[in-house]
Amino acid sequence: MNTNPQFLATKATVDHAAVQPLPASRKLYETGSRPDIKVPFREIMQDDTPSLFGGEKNPALTVYDTSGPYTDPNATIDIRKGLETPRLPWILERQDTEALQSLSSQFGRTRETNPELETLRFTRTRSVRRALPGANVTQMHYARRGIVTPEMEFVAIRENVRRERYLESLRREGSGGIRLAERLAHQHPGQSFGAALPAVVTPEFVRAEVARGRAIIPANINHPEVEPMAIGRNFLVKVNANIGNSAIRSDISEEVEKMTWAIRWGADTVMDLSTGKHIHETREWIVRNSPVPIGTVPIYQALEKVGGVAEDLNWEIFRDTLIEQAEQGVDYFTIHAGVRLPFVPMTASRMTGIVSRGGAIMAKWCLAHHKESFLYDRFEEICEIMKTYDISFSLGDGLRPGSGYDANDEAQFAELRTLGELTQVAWRHDIQVMIEGPGHVPMQLIRENMELQLKHCHEAPFYTLGPLTTDIAPGYDHITSGIGAALIGWYGTAMLCYVTPKEHLGLPNKKDVKDGLITYKIAAHAADLAKGHPGAAIRDNALSKARFEFRWEDQFNLGLDPDTARAFHDETLPKVSMKVAHFCSMCGPKFCSMKISQDVRDYAKKRGLDEVGALVQGMAAKSAEFVSQGSEIYHKV
Amino acid sequence: MNTNPQFLATKATVDHAAVQPLPASRKLYETGSRPDIKVPFREIMQDDTPSLFGGEKNPALTVYDTSGPYTDPNATIDIRKGLETPRLPWILERQDTEALQSLSSQFGRTRETNPELETLRFTRTRSVRRALPGANVTQMHYARRGIVTPEMEFVAIRENVRRERYLESLRREGSGGIRLAERLAHQHPGQSFGAALPAVVTPEFVRAEVARGRAIIPANINHPEVEPMAIGRNFLVKVNANIGNSAIRSDISEEVEKMTWAIRWGADTVMDLSTGKHIHETREWIVRNSPVPIGTVPIYQALEKVGGVAEDLNWEIFRDTLIEQAEQGVDYFTIHAGVRLPFVPMTASRMTGIVSRGGAIMAKWCLAHHKESFLYDRFEEICEIMKTYDISFSLGDGLRPGSGYDANDEAQFAELRTLGELTQVAWRHDIQVMIEGPGHVPMQLIRENMELQLKHCHEAPFYTLGPLTTDIAPGYDHITSGIGAALIGWYGTAMLCYVTPKEHLGLPNKKDVKDGLITYKIAAHAADLAKGHPGAAIRDNALSKARFEFRWEDQFNLGLDPDTARAFHDETLPKVSMKVAHFCSMCGPKFCSMKISQDVRDYAKKRGLDEVGALVQGMAAKSAEFVSQGSEIYHKV
Repeated sequence: MNTNPQFLATKATVDHAAVQPLPASRKLYETGSRPDIKVPFREIMQDDTPSLFGGEKNPALTVYDTSGPYTDPNATIDIRKGLETPRLPWILERQDTEALQSLSSQFGRTRETNPELETLRFTRTRSVRRALPGANVTQMHYARRGIVTPEMEFVAIRENVRRERYLESLRREGSGGIRLAERLAHQHPGQSFGAALPAVVTPEFVRAEVARGRAIIPANINHPEVEPMAIGRNFLVKVNANIGNSAIRSDISEEVEKMTWAIRWGADTVMDLSTGKHIHETREWIVRNSPVPIGTVPIYQALEKVGGVAEDLNWEIFRDTLIEQAEQGVDYFTIHAGVRLPFVPMTASRMTGIVSRGGAIMAKWCLAHHKESFLYDRFEEICEIMKTYDISFSLGDGLRPGSGYDANDEAQFAELRTLGELTQVAWRHDIQVMIEGPGHVPMQLIRENMELQLKHCHEAPFYTLGPLTTDIAPGYDHITSGIGAALIGWYGTAMLCYVTPKEHLGLPNKKDVKDGLITYKIAAHAADLAKGHPGAAIRDNALSKARFEFRWEDQFNLGLDPDTARAFHDETLPKVSMKVAHFCSMCGPKFCSMKISQDVRDYAKKRGLDEVGALVQGMAAKSAEFVSQGSEIYHKV
Repeated sequence: MNTNPQFLATKATVDHAAVQPLPASRKLYETGSRPDIKVPFREIMQDDTPSLFGGEKNPALTVYDTSGPYTDPNATIDIRKGLETPRLPWILERQDTEALQSLSSQFGRTRETNPELETLRFTRTRSVRRALPGANVTQMHYARRGIVTPEMEFVAIRENVRRERYLESLRREGSGGIRLAERLAHQHPGQSFGAALPAVVTPEFVRAEVARGRAIIPANINHPEVEPMAIGRNFLVKVNANIGNSAIRSDISEEVEKMTWAIRWGADTVMDLSTGKHIHETREWIVRNSPVPIGTVPIYQALEKVGGVAEDLNWEIFRDTLIEQAEQGVDYFTIHAGVRLPFVPMTASRMTGIVSRGGAIMAKWCLAHHKESFLYDRFEEICEIMKTYDISFSLGDGLRPGSGYDANDEAQFAELRTLGELTQVAWRHDIQVMIEGPGHVPMQLIRENMELQLKHCHEAPFYTLGPLTTDIAPGYDHITSGIGAALIGWYGTAMLCYVTPKEHLGLPNKKDVKDGLITYKIAAHAADLAKGHPGAAIRDNALSKARFEFRWEDQFNLGLDPDTARAFHDETLPKVSMKVAHFCSMCGPKFCSMKISQDVRDYAKKRGLDEVGALVQGMAAKSAEFVSQGSEIYHKV
């Protein structure tokens, strides 16, 4: 019985909008130390500077690219087959895993053979893998043994965004190129709040950060399609996009579309939060077609399996769910193991109680049984599963505040301390961990969240939702939270979980996904700039230069969303000729301040800068005169 | 010749969308010490709490209201007649002004009699006023003489937003009301960066702040329609909306519509930045119909008068323009008197030169004549005009950075120091002053802007544009700058000049105006919360309470934009029954964390809170066990 009449596996096609290359962009791969390490980037072509401004060539700009093969015109995309599997040889050659004859999860096996799911099911051709008995296949385990994996090298190349190569090739162009490279690379000193950002990320640096738990590379051995990425305070700030249907709305193709749409606009990871009827099948389609790590909250599906009655949950069902999802290739699990029985009553006097779904489920379970959470009690057993597939923990903040009123309270911080304890338990198993954070926090209380997280959780990466800095703007919570996200990213959060305009109101559609993502890419980038992330300003500088030089097309294309920028421009100046015009609709041709600025430059060049000094000196006398005339007088009253 | 064929004065009507009362809202006036001080507020009605959550009554919430008589169903709105003039008696009874027989500005007189403008012209029925010879009619002048004007009392009542009255009436309802008042008034301590926020704003406090220059009340004696408001670090953070046509696009009715639309969504002041053909006529329509202070940049019009050739500007034309606009009732003038000849060459090595239109015009003039700016040289003469009408200075930052690259540079801060000097000159004349600020500044450099402004400009209110925290998102600069605005508002900026999504791309339409405003209302409110502005959290708390209790309609109506919130909700749960449902489309009926939270509350109530203590203790042993098992191990590598 296909309750998704719109969706038929045999006819599934990729969203047309997701496979168009971005304007003026070219896919590019940089090869690592071995030919099968091919790190994707996007190059944005630029026009020459108009002769009025000097006529120089502007080199194509390389940017970080999360969009996967979808934006590669040479890739064949067929979502019925899934993506290619660049990681597979790396996993196989480690010789610490085995192919399974059948799935380990009972539920997984049922779904595989249920004829009613025939029309919905993704047809898998590759066998599922698991660590050999006794083996630990986590990136952290390798890192701690001193091994630099291909995944780590991939991440290192990716984080550098070809910066050195780009500037070097510019400098080779002679004095003009050297000047241009200097201008593009100019960046204000950052304020890093203790982050240790290297000038160049080396594979060894990645290994060391993963080994000490300051960064994670979420990469399940059953997700060989993934293009490895790192989440850590000393790397670029990352952004997660949540997708997922609910019991009210449900459509597999819509969720796959949201995933491809999300990575097109910069999602570094995607969480599938589906709670509807075909969670298992939806997830399979998403993972097989996702080049970014996929996260889930397994308790949602476990609850589904017990008919939605939290009290009926038990360890056996939860365990089977973990294994089911592990063998599908989920890269990180949100597990609310910090929602402990004694903390639950601490939320009684809150304005908005427990707002995390997972947190609420576990709170209800604890109360109903008057027992400690089985997630906490069985945490070591969960660890055994995680390290068998290399799934990262995203230790969930089930007691996060749901309003500014509840921010930074006893319940929230009691849970945070517990997450710190659990981090140490997981690290004993060499399992990668990140910590989830709030939520709703007014600006002046955000920093305490970051500081306590670093302290209690021993610098494990922080992964926050917003936080929302005010509660008075439903419909605009991408913005109330984008402000908080920029701040906490600056203070040290490694990944920002986006919030869409629909937050608190409904499920996001594709437009909401994009609005949320662009807002969070802005927050993440503003944070990178403020931390002083090396090279972060290059794109800003290139775009500002294009703006000054009235290279309209370049201004659009260098931005996070060329389509919207172009459409906005065309609303008031639609003609092609206007896009090469040296003025814009805001001021019109007579008032162009950019043009006048160029006059200033020409003037300064002609007269020499010595004159500037003379002018300043000459005016000093006059200025003193003003002050002497009565700087005191305004105090008279 | 009417080049605005769409616009005919005799047929001008108010925008229908601007005169609808907001949902569930009621206009309300609080009377001051005299019956003609009637301060407008908006009351938002709320439903009762559903019985599941306790069934209490939720009192209507009072909010600050900038929308003027347009949202008062008892007011007769006819934009051809203009608004009523509540300030007129206050101005008249001071007996320090005179009615003019004819306009003082030559240009003004020409426009008044030009038959070609007949069809466009607003028909003025009231005579223009000017200070009696030798008189100073500024609010600062009165303040320094110890006079509390009706304007100051109006501001005091307005700033308190009926908070005490509201909580008091709640407390009178008995123990339930006392508890509710306590919950609604709960607020985290702020971090004020030196702001001195009083628990209650008194008229005397307003007077003292105006007297020492820390706040301004922009209120031209020729703008008696205005509902007085204050801009100062120790008051609520305000928001300005820029409107205005250009040479490329031009329509009077569109600009009047933008004004009424802007104040509906919270604009505290509006700047008319028109540069097109009918600047004078457009401005008259706007001022006569605006209950909020109007600001302009007079140099734009002066330039228009000399055919757009900056070199042809001179003091006489500029002076006549100031007087022309002064007699129309403009409340504050942006004057770029800090763009001095010696500073201009400092911009030569910038990435984006001079991006302020006014700054660029003056820079060009200075270079062309190789002379000091006439705005600087004639500053005392400008002061004479300002105090004759009580126009506030908005000392323009003509050298603000136009890119993160240029932030906090020599040119910017040289100008800032000059603005500080000029502030002291203006204050010698008892003229109200605010200081304009940037622009484009990465987050880590924002605080220096605020600190230097406070220092160099002696705590005169800061009025900043954004700042934009990154340059890579054209089409989303309301967001790149909303982040910076929230931060600088927190640090102490008194008014935030909005940025719309069209920034850098085109002129904002009504949708853009609203998007920009809501974003900036969020930034301003987030700043109020972070500073610890008394009572700022009440609206957040009321909305959070409504959210927890599934009062959907209240959640929409208490927000900054009820229409959008409702529309978003209805996209996934359109039925009326869904708006009273105790769950939402994100989680569906089984997964509702709010419902589970209520279970927790009931549980805590039943068992008593003593049990919580016992639970916490019981768990301490277990927690110690975890740590002892190997908190060191993760350092092993």
